Amino acid sequence: MSGEFPGYKGEALRALKDAGAEIGDVILIIKDEASYEGILIPRSEYGDDNHVVIKMESGYNVGIQVTPSTQIKKTGVGTKPTFISPPLPVEKPSLPRVAIVSTGGTIASRVDYRTGGVRPALSASDLYSVVPELSEIAMIDAEILFSLFSENITPRHWSKTAKAVAKRIEDDVAGVVVAHGTDTMGYTAAALSLALQNLPVPVVIVGSQRSADRPSSDAATNLIGAVVVAARAPFAEVVVAMHETVSDKSIIVHRGTKVRKCHTSRRDAFQSVNITSLARVEGEKVVMLTEEYRKRDPARKLVLSPDFDEKVALLKFHPGLDPKVIDRYVAEGYRGIILEGTGLGHVGTYCFSAVERAIKQGLVVAMTSQCVWGRVNMNVYDTGRDLLALGVVPLEDMLPETALVKLMWIFGQTKDAEEARGFLTKNMAHEISPKRLA
Amino acid sequence: MSGEFPGYKGEALRALKDAGAEIGDVILIIKDEASYEGILIPRSEYGDDNHVVIKMESGYNVGIQVTPSTQIKKTGVGTKPTFISPPLPVEKPSLPRVAIVSTGGTIASRVDYRTGGVRPALSASDLYSVVPELSEIAMIDAEILFSLFSENITPRHWSKTAKAVAKRIEDDVAGVVVAHGTDTMGYTAAALSLALQNLPVPVVIVGSQRSADRPSSDAATNLIGAVVVAARAPFAEVVVAMHETVSDKSIIVHRGTKVRKCHTSRRDAFQSVNITSLARVEGEKVVMLTEEYRKRDPARKLVLSPDFDEKVALLKFHPGLDPKVIDRYVAEGYRGIILEGTGLGHVGTYCFSAVERAIKQGLVVAMTSQCVWGRVNMNVYDTGRDLLALGVVPLEDMLPETALVKLMWIFGQTKDAEEARGFLTKNMAHEISPKRLA
Repeated sequence: MSGEFPGYKGEALRALKDAGAEIGDVILIIKDEASYEGILIPRSEYGDDNHVVIKMESGYNVGIQVTPSTQIKKTGVGTKPTFISPPLPVEKPSLPRVAIVSTGGTIASRVDYRTGGVRPALSASDLYSVVPELSEIAMIDAEILFSLFSENITPRHWSKTAKAVAKRIEDDVAGVVVAHGTDTMGYTAAALSLALQNLPVPVVIVGSQRSADRPSSDAATNLIGAVVVAARAPFAEVVVAMHETVSDKSIIVHRGTKVRKCHTSRRDAFQSVNITSLARVEGEKVVMLTEEYRKRDPARKLVLSPDFDEKVALLKFHPGLDPKVIDRYVAEGYRGIILEGTGLGHVGTYCFSAVERAIKQGLVVAMTSQCVWGRVNMNVYDTGRDLLALGVVPLEDMLPETALVKLMWIFGQTKDAEEARGFLTKNMAHEISPKRLA
Repeated sequence: MSGEFPGYKGEALRALKDAGAEIGDVILIIKDEASYEGILIPRSEYGDDNHVVIKMESGYNVGIQVTPSTQIKKTGVGTKPTFISPPLPVEKPSLPRVAIVSTGGTIASRVDYRTGGVRPALSASDLYSVVPELSEIAMIDAEILFSLFSENITPRHWSKTAKAVAKRIEDDVAGVVVAHGTDTMGYTAAALSLALQNLPVPVVIVGSQRSADRPSSDAATNLIGAVVVAARAPFAEVVVAMHETVSDKSIIVHRGTKVRKCHTSRRDAFQSVNITSLARVEGEKVVMLTEEYRKRDPARKLVLSPDFDEKVALLKFHPGLDPKVIDRYVAEGYRGIILEGTGLGHVGTYCFSAVERAIKQGLVVAMTSQCVWGRVNMNVYDTGRDLLALGVVPLEDMLPETALVKLMWIFGQTKDAEEARGFLTKNMAHEISPKRLA
């Protein structure tokens, strides 16, 4: 930090001081033959010495490297709005109570245009002011648990989130919404699916792919959809609610163990893999897409198992993979390895002896496929049969990411490898889809 | 190997001897309350002591564990067909010459029903007998380079394949077909796309998802499609030709750097990612799907650059990843790491210092996305900008697998990290799609 210029140092700081520009001001940067105009925003502490970051009119932030020939001019003075909470809407005690637990991410924030900084906006009154529709659907009780980009969420945060959600459920809410960054939302969804067993009400994880300050933001529609599900859905499972298509027409509800972020930026990035989605929110109605689900039952008693053990590796096989990588995990005391094999569940025969050593040393080694879609079948080719004979556990159509989370969770419950193998192949939260007969 | 029972030993061997069954016989296995009937087939040398493998009527092989209570009965005597090559068709010298270089895989084999063993069937006469249509399309010259399941293909095999293809091109063929297992076909396609530059004619990689002994096999239609492309397509690029849908109606042609196996078993498992496919084969016609391609030109001089350096890691980031994994690659003399980050190209801040150490030690660290679809954009969030500031190379919409192959190839040409970074971000074989303006 450097006074008025948080995050700026070196060349970049000097250039900004010369221009007399402060955070929040509009500046014009002329470099080589291009020019860029936008609002000067602060940088993080990890930034280098020579980039200036501005928020362009498109809503995107751009970093521009300052060279000796770069010119910076201040073209507008920053307006300094403050957030004034609007009066609270009249609460309607007849509406279902929904808790929102925020872990951070794009959806949980609104951008302060002056600083470009991300500001959590999740008090109930902030939410009602940003998304007034919510006050017609539920009585919201909002809590900021973390303010993290989801790439910084770790298994320890999964545990804390599970406990926070459990506490809300004990308070007899109609459902819980978890606001979360989209980057690792699939992993957290799998984690909560296992940590929160025997659920009485729905737990709905929601995020947004575009921040609320961009015209194309999906934040409000996703949040409304998630609150509708939490308040009204007939099921009691851990789900992810996000845009179904690029339009704002419907929110689709994915099972927490079968969902994957399949696009870096599209609003419909999340997809159910190897399974149909659980439900769709159309307007403010929840339409079920399958009849097989655990019914909402407020009398059911939640079982909380929030522990995870991080000593599990996810290893994607590829041509030329050095099998020593496997030996290293053994040497470092890992308890399990999830292989992302090729095709039906294969790794090269040159990895067999390392796999065998790992299993003999007591590790659980299990197989998923890097194809993403489809099912591991290790009975078709010699390679698969040989790996089964070595003791590799085939994980059917389980997503590699879900398999990793599940094995971390299993080792949070037991340290016994044989017992772990048993849990791994047992379908606990829809992570294994039923085989369709060929 | 054990005489008449290759691959069998221990309990399984004893049970088979007791039943008087030989390889190729039909046997009935009764175990617990189930029974299984099929042709006894040999096992590989890696097999365990107690599984018997039979080929069921469905065409699938199944391994059944023999326990003391398992009964085995011989119910039929194996027929022992031999392959008699049919007379060669009359060759038509007016047709284009196409070379088929086989590396193995399901497409390159036909199953010997007696032994269940996979037998390469790629002499020209074998091919004409299995797929008689070929003799109407091209004069085939077939060569068996390897007989490998593709999970056993390594970068050294990429080099040998590139050299074999180059030799055929020097012989003035109209095109080369490479028969290949589907498991790592995408990796090999990327490798040949880089190793074979300035191509005069098409190089078409082809495989099959279902073996030729199954009614649903795609082997013949894919092979015909690939030969049509090699003989007649107007372009000169490295491509993959596979089923477009589950029907046999059309073969789709993917660019070698943009194709990925996206399903474990479907016939239309291969998909072009972030780009439209290059062409479609309808009947025996090649229909171009874009006008931007390198035209076939037999006068053009191929540039062969077949070397790869395996000291490159592919690391998929996930919650709880231990950053020490990165330090280990540095300690072991790796030259580069391709990160499969989350979303727009992120890893947790807890990995930053390890990433920084790797780059300071001279490694090339580059970013792709585990989302599969979409484009890395490291300018949107602080995490991305910070990683750029540390020196991480953003790889746009390049597939992680292609990025791995490309960095292995680059280090086959130069050991200079700065030069390597330059090559990595330069579009050499359509591995980076043009940005569409938002």
